[in-house]
This record gives sequence, C-alpha cells and structure tokens, in this order.
Amino acid sequence: MLATFMYGPGDVRVEETADPKILQPTDAIVKIVLSCICGSDLHAYHGGGIRSGVSAMGHEFLGLVEETGANVQTLKKGDLVVAPFVWADNTCDFCREGLHTSCRHGGVWGAGDVGGAQAEAVRVPLADGTLVKLPVGVDSELLPDLLTLSDVFCTGYHAAFKGRVGEDTTVTVIGDGAVGLSAVLSAKLLGASRIILMGRHEARTDLGLEFGATDVVPERGEEGIARVKDLTGGDGTHVVIEAVGFPEAFDQAFGVVRPGGTVSRVGVPQYQDANVGMASMFFPNITLTGGVAPARAYIERLMPKILDGTIHPGRVFDRTISLAEVPDGYKAMDDRTALKVLVRP
Amino acid sequence: MLATFMYGPGDVRVEETADPKILQPTDAIVKIVLSCICGSDLHAYHGGGIRSGVSAMGHEFLGLVEETGANVQTLKKGDLVVAPFVWADNTCDFCREGLHTSCRHGGVWGAGDVGGAQAEAVRVPLADGTLVKLPVGVDSELLPDLLTLSDVFCTGYHAAFKGRVGEDTTVTVIGDGAVGLSAVLSAKLLGASRIILMGRHEARTDLGLEFGATDVVPERGEEGIARVKDLTGGDGTHVVIEAVGFPEAFDQAFGVVRPGGTVSRVGVPQYQDANVGMASMFFPNITLTGGVAPARAYIERLMPKILDGTIHPGRVFDRTISLAEVPDGYKAMDDRTALKVLVRP
Repeated sequence: MLATFMYGPGDVRVEETADPKILQPTDAIVKIVLSCICGSDLHAYHGGGIRSGVSAMGHEFLGLVEETGANVQTLKKGDLVVAPFVWADNTCDFCREGLHTSCRHGGVWGAGDVGGAQAEAVRVPLADGTLVKLPVGVDSELLPDLLTLSDVFCTGYHAAFKGRVGEDTTVTVIGDGAVGLSAVLSAKLLGASRIILMGRHEARTDLGLEFGATDVVPERGEEGIARVKDLTGGDGTHVVIEAVGFPEAFDQAFGVVRPGGTVSRVGVPQYQDANVGMASMFFPNITLTGGVAPARAYIERLMPKILDGTIHPGRVFDRTISLAEVPDGYKAMDDRTALKVLVRP
Repeated sequence: MLATFMYGPGDVRVEETADPKILQPTDAIVKIVLSCICGSDLHAYHGGGIRSGVSAMGHEFLGLVEETGANVQTLKKGDLVVAPFVWADNTCDFCREGLHTSCRHGGVWGAGDVGGAQAEAVRVPLADGTLVKLPVGVDSELLPDLLTLSDVFCTGYHAAFKGRVGEDTTVTVIGDGAVGLSAVLSAKLLGASRIILMGRHEARTDLGLEFGATDVVPERGEEGIARVKDLTGGDGTHVVIEAVGFPEAFDQAFGVVRPGGTVSRVGVPQYQDANVGMASMFFPNITLTGGVAPARAYIERLMPKILDGTIHPGRVFDRTISLAEVPDGYKAMDDRTALKVLVRP
C-alpha cells in the first residue's frame, strides 16, 4: 500500500510499504477513507518536535474496519469508525478519568510497529478502546466534520474545557489556524459571550467570526495586547487559549489574561522554558493549563452536535488531495495557502 | 513609635518613627497586639524580591482599633481585628470574585505612605474592607492561631484550594516551612487522605505529621522524586503544593505530579523562567496554578475552625520576641533555628 513518511525537515515522501497485518488479538485493520494533515506535522516538517529518523506520518483518520483480531468485541468488518490521535484501551484509570493521552497501555500513531494514518490502511492497536463507530454511511456529507473528532476539533475543545469556559467567561483565542478556529467554535459551544480571535489571515478570521468570534485582533505582540486590553476595559479576558506553540504566543497569552484567569495551551510548545515568574503569573494568580488533548474523551460528547447539524467543524478543511499529493499538502499548509488539508487515499 | 525597616540584605533595624495618622476618611489606626515574621521577608533579607531602598517591614498583624476615619462604618475604637497581608476594599469585582490581591483600590503594607506591621501601630487603608473583627478578647489563647489568618495559614489554604484538593486527591507538599505545614493542615481540612510532606527538618516534619501528613520524604531532587513515585505506585500525586519558591522545588514538583494533575505554587518564585515544555507539563496535561494568596477571601471561612478548636494553625510559631528583638528573629528564621517568629510589640 501507499503511506507517507518524513525523512527529515521538509522531506515528505509517499511510498509503497507492506500492508498492515493483525499482530495482536486486540488489533483491527482499518482501510482509511479520510485522513488529513495536522499543524503539529508542520512542527516536525520544520525539524522540531520529538521525532528522529524516518517517521510514518498521519494521526487523524476515519475509515472502514477491514479485519479484526480474535479478541475484538465491539467492531466488525465494514464498520465506519473514527480514531483519536492517541490510541488507548479506554478502560484504565487514566482513561476513565478522561486522560486517554496518558493511557497505561496506549501509544501514538507512527511509532514502533504502528503505522501512520496518511496511508491507505493502518493497524489499530486496542481497537475496542481506540475506535468509535460512526452512525453514518461512507457517502455521508458529514465525514469531514466527523474526521475533526480525531484531533483538531477535540483539541480546540480541550483548550476551552480545560480553561473552564462557560457563560460567564470572556475568551481570547491566539492563533487563526485550524486549532484556534476549533477553539473559537468550542468556546461558543460552551456559552462564552465574548470571544476575541487574534489572527491576521483574513479568510481564516472570517471563518472564526462565523464560528462565533465577536472580535478579531490582527495586531500581535505589545500592540495586540494593547488592543485586547482596550476591548476589555483594561483587564484582558478570563480565559486565553494559546493555539500556536511559539514563545511569542505564550508571552502574548500572559499579556491578555485577566488577573485570576487561565491560559490554556493546545499549541504544541516549541520551547521548554518560559516566564512563569512573579509579575506575569504569580502575583495575578494566573493558572496555566491545557496540553495534549485526550480526543477519545470528547468524541461521544461532541459527535451528536455534528450529527444534528449544530456545528460544522469540518469547515476548517479548505483543500482536498489524494495520497500521492500529500507532500504538496504539507507545502501548502506550510506556505499558509491551505488552512487544513483533507486527504482521500 | 518603634517600627522595623530593612536597609538592605541582612540589615534589619528597629527604629523610632512618626506615629501613623489618619490620612483618608476610610482609614483606621490599629495598635498592634501580635505581628510576626514571614518567609517572604527572608527573600527580601537575601536581597531578592521586588523591594528597593529602605522598606517598612511586616504584613501580618492583629490588633486593637485605636482611631477610625469619618467614613469607617463597621469598626470602632477597641475592636480586636485581624488584617490580611494585602489591604483591599472588599467590594470591587475582583474582591467579590475572591481575588482581593488584585483589588482595584488595594495595596501592600510597607509601600508608599502605608507602614509595615512589625511596628507598634499601623495605618490601615480601606479599613472596612481590609479588617475582620475577632470575636475574642485580647487575652484569648487563640490569638496566635487567629494571627495566621493574616497570611501563613490562608496561604497554605490557597495552595490547597487552588489545587482543588478534596477527598479523592492525593497530595504532596514540598517544603516544611510554616507555609508548607499550613498547606498540610489545609489539605487535611479539605479531606485529602494521602498527604506526603517533603522536608528534612525533623521538628518541622513532626508537626507536619500532627497536622495530617501521612508520609514524610526527607530526600530531595531525583532521589526525593523516586521516593514519592515509590509511595504512589509510580504515578505521583494528583496535587503538588510547592511552598518553597526556588527553581529546584519547581522542578521537583513536576517530578512528583501525576499525569493530569496540578502543581499549586505558593512559595514566592525566586525565578522568572522555568521548564513548562512538552515532556514536563504539556504531554502529561499538568496544570500550574497558585499565586499570591488573597487571604481576605478565606478569613471568614477558616476562622470558625480555629474558634471551635478544630485546628491550631498557630502551632507554626515556635518563638516569641519583642519588637526590639526583631532583627534577631530574622536571623533565627534565616538560620532555621526558628520556624516562625511571633512578635509582641
């Protein structure tokens, strides 16, 4: 089959590789119907992140179950399923607490003997725990929306949820990428009345306004901080969602958060150390939260809102390509000519 | 009157100074009955913190109202009162949210024309909002316990409260100083069943055990982290209270916190930058919270537990001195020959 590999910064190749096989009785093989490219793939594309050597790429997919191991109980050939971007047993104590990313038996796609999802098929470990059945057909128009449950929408939701966004909270979202826009949509879903989106790419911030943003601030740094302060009577907002991952965005977040408020990060941090000292964080009692989203914990909660048409998180996809075109897809996202690229193998 | 001033690192002097006077109609003058020396005073004693020039010292006191300004409504001469370590109006939006340390009209003791509390008397701005009446006489044996509501006990409580300690949480407290021990007592009060105290000063950790600690770990750094991991099945605890303020304690906190857990800081950070990157914080979804405790928010909540004898937070005081002896008190706390020093002017 065809699958995507990263050989080094900027070097993405789609190559023939062995078809995945059942290795454990809890495995399933899924034929991928839709996959996509993630902003976090771009960090690897730039040489960042924790990968080394040749990596199998892709961690977001929905597809058809093709084969199941002897111990798989809840799935059968032909089921349409979506997978979270970290596989998990969904039964251990961490999973029961909603922290599937710390599952005692789980892991990530494209590591060890588990392939990536920018491919024709993938072996799914702990299939009963990992996969969630979709109550629609393979021809449903909702598939791009449902694919966002794999990562991007759940990541935006995690940011808002961990930030405890509610009806009484004002929110700033830093970053107009697909995660930032998903965070806007999530903050709206959780009832926030004021959602300030910091971003300068107009097509994206326009989608942000449709998703529920009440204000757009294109300025960055000190100028952007001053604008948000102006919009909030000098105080900043109760919650700030940082959906970028660069140090400048971290500092900007602390610049626009209200005393007693929360900075919730979902942009994968491309730094280790940051200012968490007296003036920025300790005196004003700011909370820093967020992290890698346990998407699996949110899929059942969010899917009904997609199925009933309340939300269309799949609107973040603005280009669709074939598997062979995946290297161009990375380039388009890196150039910011595409917001988020859908892959139909 | 006599009052305490810091002229520079290690240079504390008790000197004659002008008696405080009513400057605003919302002021009160309080004759100090009990004051004390704080761990955060020691940071200044070492040249740290944000002070420069000569500083009036002391921010914890209880005393007798001697005079009130024309607009003071709730207090009269002779009332016995306790003050939080940040004065506040107790009416603005931040105060109503329980964040008196960010009061729109408040401030700190020993700054501008407000004196310090290691003195014979002090001018109290916004007296109606700042001061809380004590329903006991000046000869009550509970005064040292009630004095801890000024700062140290409320600071320990803030750490546990912001960390959301409850019956289902396990807790590690880093630091066997008076704040760390107050945090142990607070975690116990909030129902924590497992409280691991990291400290090596046996007289202090013994008091920690009486306050509710279930385990004491004297080791520090990697060795200490390994011990706490051993005690918790390899996972660490749900909440870690960092009551020291040095970078080593910050790193130790992230070493012993369970995935999905919370590090709650109340040790005044003697650093700006710290590791909040992928491995230590983002991947395991750790929350960092805490900050300067809005003691005023907790005084009414905690006072009944002192009055009914449930808790004796004043047991952290292990030496009592006169005002003239305050320089020796700083030295004793700096040498760690005293845990926390009570001052009777």
